[in-house]
Amino acid sequence: MKDLEKISVIGMGLLGSSVTLAIGRAFPRIEVVGFSHRAATREKARQMQVADVIEETLQGSVDQADLVILATPIRTFEAYFEQMQPCLKDGCMVTDVGSTKELPHRWAGRIFGNRVFYAGSHPIAGSEKRGVEYARDDLLFGARCIVTKTGGTNASTVKTLERFWTKLGCRVQVMSPQKHDRIFGHISHLPHLTAAALVNANLTETLKFAGKGFIDTSRVASGPANIWTDILLTNAENTAEGIDRLIAELGQLKTAILKKDEKRIQMLLEKARTRREAMIAYKIKQKELF
Amino acid sequence: MKDLEKISVIGMGLLGSSVTLAIGRAFPRIEVVGFSHRAATREKARQMQVADVIEETLQGSVDQADLVILATPIRTFEAYFEQMQPCLKDGCMVTDVGSTKELPHRWAGRIFGNRVFYAGSHPIAGSEKRGVEYARDDLLFGARCIVTKTGGTNASTVKTLERFWTKLGCRVQVMSPQKHDRIFGHISHLPHLTAAALVNANLTETLKFAGKGFIDTSRVASGPANIWTDILLTNAENTAEGIDRLIAELGQLKTAILKKDEKRIQMLLEKARTRREAMIAYKIKQKELF
Repeated sequence: MKDLEKISVIGMGLLGSSVTLAIGRAFPRIEVVGFSHRAATREKARQMQVADVIEETLQGSVDQADLVILATPIRTFEAYFEQMQPCLKDGCMVTDVGSTKELPHRWAGRIFGNRVFYAGSHPIAGSEKRGVEYARDDLLFGARCIVTKTGGTNASTVKTLERFWTKLGCRVQVMSPQKHDRIFGHISHLPHLTAAALVNANLTETLKFAGKGFIDTSRVASGPANIWTDILLTNAENTAEGIDRLIAELGQLKTAILKKDEKRIQMLLEKARTRREAMIAYKIKQKELF
Repeated sequence: MKDLEKISVIGMGLLGSSVTLAIGRAFPRIEVVGFSHRAATREKARQMQVADVIEETLQGSVDQADLVILATPIRTFEAYFEQMQPCLKDGCMVTDVGSTKELPHRWAGRIFGNRVFYAGSHPIAGSEKRGVEYARDDLLFGARCIVTKTGGTNASTVKTLERFWTKLGCRVQVMSPQKHDRIFGHISHLPHLTAAALVNANLTETLKFAGKGFIDTSRVASGPANIWTDILLTNAENTAEGIDRLIAELGQLKTAILKKDEKRIQMLLEKARTRREAMIAYKIKQKELF
């Protein structure tokens, strides 16, 4: 990747510091610098040597960078874009690793204009673990990564990001931020809400009787509330629409159950079973599951 | 257990045949016989030697039995009770291993009267696997088992069942069938419906983007539709009430998201997170999870 000599990663959480490690392995000639607004995190990141340099300031981190990757909570993006904008060189590429994409595109368009090139990224990799201490250079290996572009997005920036994430081990797909947010509102943000609602719908005394089924169905509800609040606030309409669809499906099941309509209950359950089995078969074929 | 010389298990699926194997190990002096209405299953059960004898008829299987355990789908219980009733000796104990308990108690009360003693059992053990070929003598080890009784249930039958399931490795709790069905309607049957509704709420194209979160949240939707239809039909009011609670929780989340009420979203997610973590801690303390 001749167009990249220096990459800056802002945010040294699990994902940001795993990205710096992966860059170090995939692109040994590119200078990779990291930044965190917390001194304690910078110190840990230095001890763990997750980047060539951990800068003390945002300005120092993005100075002369060819690519800046924002790996902080989505709610901080707008302020970071504002702060870094005057420090970026002309033609600098900016992306992020946030889980929603419409608002970041809108913020970037307003703040960067045509001088700096933004496109969104969403590498779908994670772990229950949090923080730089769990950074792994193979966290992105085999992960899907969505790159988002609008009509106004610089085409060569999209090409560069496609090659960049592919080199880090991701399977890249390009789509609009609108399509991205609709898909992930339904397939990722909705299950989180579902799991949380399922836990809250049960009495504490009843939770003691939870078996393997309940434990799996509710697993994602143990995720960090602040990060998920961020995601839901920046993808409100799509997640609300997903809730409506889910409530409609639950309503159909409830009606069939109260009517003791055996055929209809069996049909709805069988539909879900066969559709899920087809999904699993697809994932295995795609080598996303083994 | 001096009061038990012969135990008969009806239904040689995974659970029934694992129970016969477990009895063989825990009570080497008790005669254990099995029965299945399918000739092919009887043949497999014989080859695998899951019981001392696999009988050719229901009548032969329950003849002179001190305890009969029904391990067939719940919808068949009423007919089996009717068929076995004339063949049972006075004072015979009957139980079952079904996932709902109110209707079996009602059917048993009507059919057995006071000549035969019924109490319900629900050993909470299972596997994605089905069929006698997966039978294991340790399937019940460490599992919870609920024994259900009403005001009219014979007390010594309850005592015998408590000792019996404990000897097979279960942690036994006694409660009313009403309480049992309310608890499991919410903690077990509701998650199944939730998982099915979540799959059906998503387009096939969207399912291709499923990550680990969706896969876990929807796992139980891959369970057998006919068995779950059975469970839902025999616990209709409790599961419908569970759906109402879940829809109410989803509605609260939706309102908070559309209002962009950050504090309220975070509060609801944090409530679910801490309640789930407390549940997991309880399960670990109880040695149900490691």
